[in-house]
Amino acid sequence: MREDKLIAKIGRLAGKSQAWPRSGLLGIGDDAALWRPRPGYEAILTCDWFLEDTHFLRQKHPPDSVGWKSLARAVSDVAAMGGVPVCFLLSLALPVSLSGRWLDEFLCGLHRAARRLRCALAGGDTTRSEQVLISTTVVGQIPRGEAVLRSGAQPGDRLFVSGRLGEAEAGLQLVRKLPKDSASGDPLRKKHLYPEPRLKLGRWLAEKHLASAMMDLSDGLSTDLPRLCAASSVGATINTAALPLARLSANPLHKKLDTHQLALHGGDDYELLFTVPARKVRQIPSSFRGLPIAAIGEITKTSAILVRKDRGRQRPLPNKGWDPFR
Amino acid sequence: MREDKLIAKIGRLAGKSQAWPRSGLLGIGDDAALWRPRPGYEAILTCDWFLEDTHFLRQKHPPDSVGWKSLARAVSDVAAMGGVPVCFLLSLALPVSLSGRWLDEFLCGLHRAARRLRCALAGGDTTRSEQVLISTTVVGQIPRGEAVLRSGAQPGDRLFVSGRLGEAEAGLQLVRKLPKDSASGDPLRKKHLYPEPRLKLGRWLAEKHLASAMMDLSDGLSTDLPRLCAASSVGATINTAALPLARLSANPLHKKLDTHQLALHGGDDYELLFTVPARKVRQIPSSFRGLPIAAIGEITKTSAILVRKDRGRQRPLPNKGWDPFR
Repeated sequence: MREDKLIAKIGRLAGKSQAWPRSGLLGIGDDAALWRPRPGYEAILTCDWFLEDTHFLRQKHPPDSVGWKSLARAVSDVAAMGGVPVCFLLSLALPVSLSGRWLDEFLCGLHRAARRLRCALAGGDTTRSEQVLISTTVVGQIPRGEAVLRSGAQPGDRLFVSGRLGEAEAGLQLVRKLPKDSASGDPLRKKHLYPEPRLKLGRWLAEKHLASAMMDLSDGLSTDLPRLCAASSVGATINTAALPLARLSANPLHKKLDTHQLALHGGDDYELLFTVPARKVRQIPSSFRGLPIAAIGEITKTSAILVRKDRGRQRPLPNKGWDPFR
Repeated sequence: MREDKLIAKIGRLAGKSQAWPRSGLLGIGDDAALWRPRPGYEAILTCDWFLEDTHFLRQKHPPDSVGWKSLARAVSDVAAMGGVPVCFLLSLALPVSLSGRWLDEFLCGLHRAARRLRCALAGGDTTRSEQVLISTTVVGQIPRGEAVLRSGAQPGDRLFVSGRLGEAEAGLQLVRKLPKDSASGDPLRKKHLYPEPRLKLGRWLAEKHLASAMMDLSDGLSTDLPRLCAASSVGATINTAALPLARLSANPLHKKLDTHQLALHGGDDYELLFTVPARKVRQIPSSFRGLPIAAIGEITKTSAILVRKDRGRQRPLPNKGWDPFR
């Protein structure tokens, strides 16, 4: 395996790109990719690590999930701004021993995600390493002025989340503890292995100017909510009774899980966390194209992040989500 | 060290960005960066690995060189298209033990490169790893239609290179064999540790429509020239007598080096390799703002890559540059 052959393999499996310059995108094969942004649009730029042992286990995670997730995670950041993905760059380093079947399956999952998320492979870099190292850069676009930042939340705004929180964490338990291909139909396992960025919801909230602030939940509510609040110089109170909880499967491995703890601290959900001014709350449906949306609390003036159990006392929410340095 | 503190440190040292949206760039602190492309311009997208043990040695390369080079290498791809850098995303993974002084010096070199190359830090991702892992994504821009691709070379075009080839490889010998901070004033060591992307030359060639094809020399002439030729479906003949050779220093470590071999196969020069139609050759000066430019051969119809010594026989050029999989 030589580097040029590896690049050819990646390029082939990624499908042929349309003719430049008509398509607006010139991809693999040059020093860099070229892209013609749409007039009146802003570009969204984001990148994400996906590293063996830190973010996935080679013995436990199917290669096609590694491919899918390495793109979906980064695209989720585009969803969180309210944008639409355009293309991505793949930085891939791997051992020579994985350049056969493992790489084929990885590229298959990546290709499926690229088609599903309408995000074209535009370039990247490859090299050799002892472990699988992936860094994915995604470029998206959004009509000028529509992007929803983390910093727009105001005291009195209501706090919403999409989906059910903690399901990916519950799925991870199955992936960790069961043999590689068992429980393959389990929806929680699927949620962990093949997350779906909430692109349509993010786009709708941005287009309708409904969300005052937004981010995606990648590290868990108790770690991510403080980031949104810090960016907006506000605090928040969460009503734990309103949290949309994971629907655990019948698997005995799930018997010991606490769905409230999963919802507060579980990572990898890639759901959207967003705030809505009180006067617009009526416009938020309880589900959007089948995806549940829950009002889980509100934004406050002080910097504290509190949880309240129904009408009980408020207490500070400990930051116990994912932190690679913890 | 928590991830949020690490991000704050990186953001602080990168300098404050100007107010969005006036500056056209919203950087660190959100799910993604936002950028307003200039009307009538195309975006250039490129990324580059820079990995401990593969691309640099922690015991031998000063951290500020690692910072400088991780950006300069990727910016060189923008120069090779004829573009101007705009901003970059930094994916950085490192051991906790390096998050103090090593990281400070790394960021110092990165910051110097960002200012020098006018390329603003716009975002990125951080995590923990056992070795230092860096992937840098650079976004550039170029007036629509001006980008110079690898695929435009035609039989009869003349082949040019900037600078003197093999100097970075000669510098690497010093870095490898001498203690970390010795020979610090040596220009070849400097060329290896702090390469200067040829942005002004690339821009000028693109703007004046002088180059029919262009790429940067990162892996060595004997590895990179076949790539340009393959993209253009042509071959090339190099006149070895015309190669601009490294000026070796008095250092005894350099006594055994063969400057011709260095010029043909040495990597990391980040000089520009470009082709010029015969009718425009007169417009190419022998130096551009002090940077030597040499005509080293010409593009041919067959796919062979040949070298010729003055009027001697032609022989095939073996591909002996850098390949991480070799």
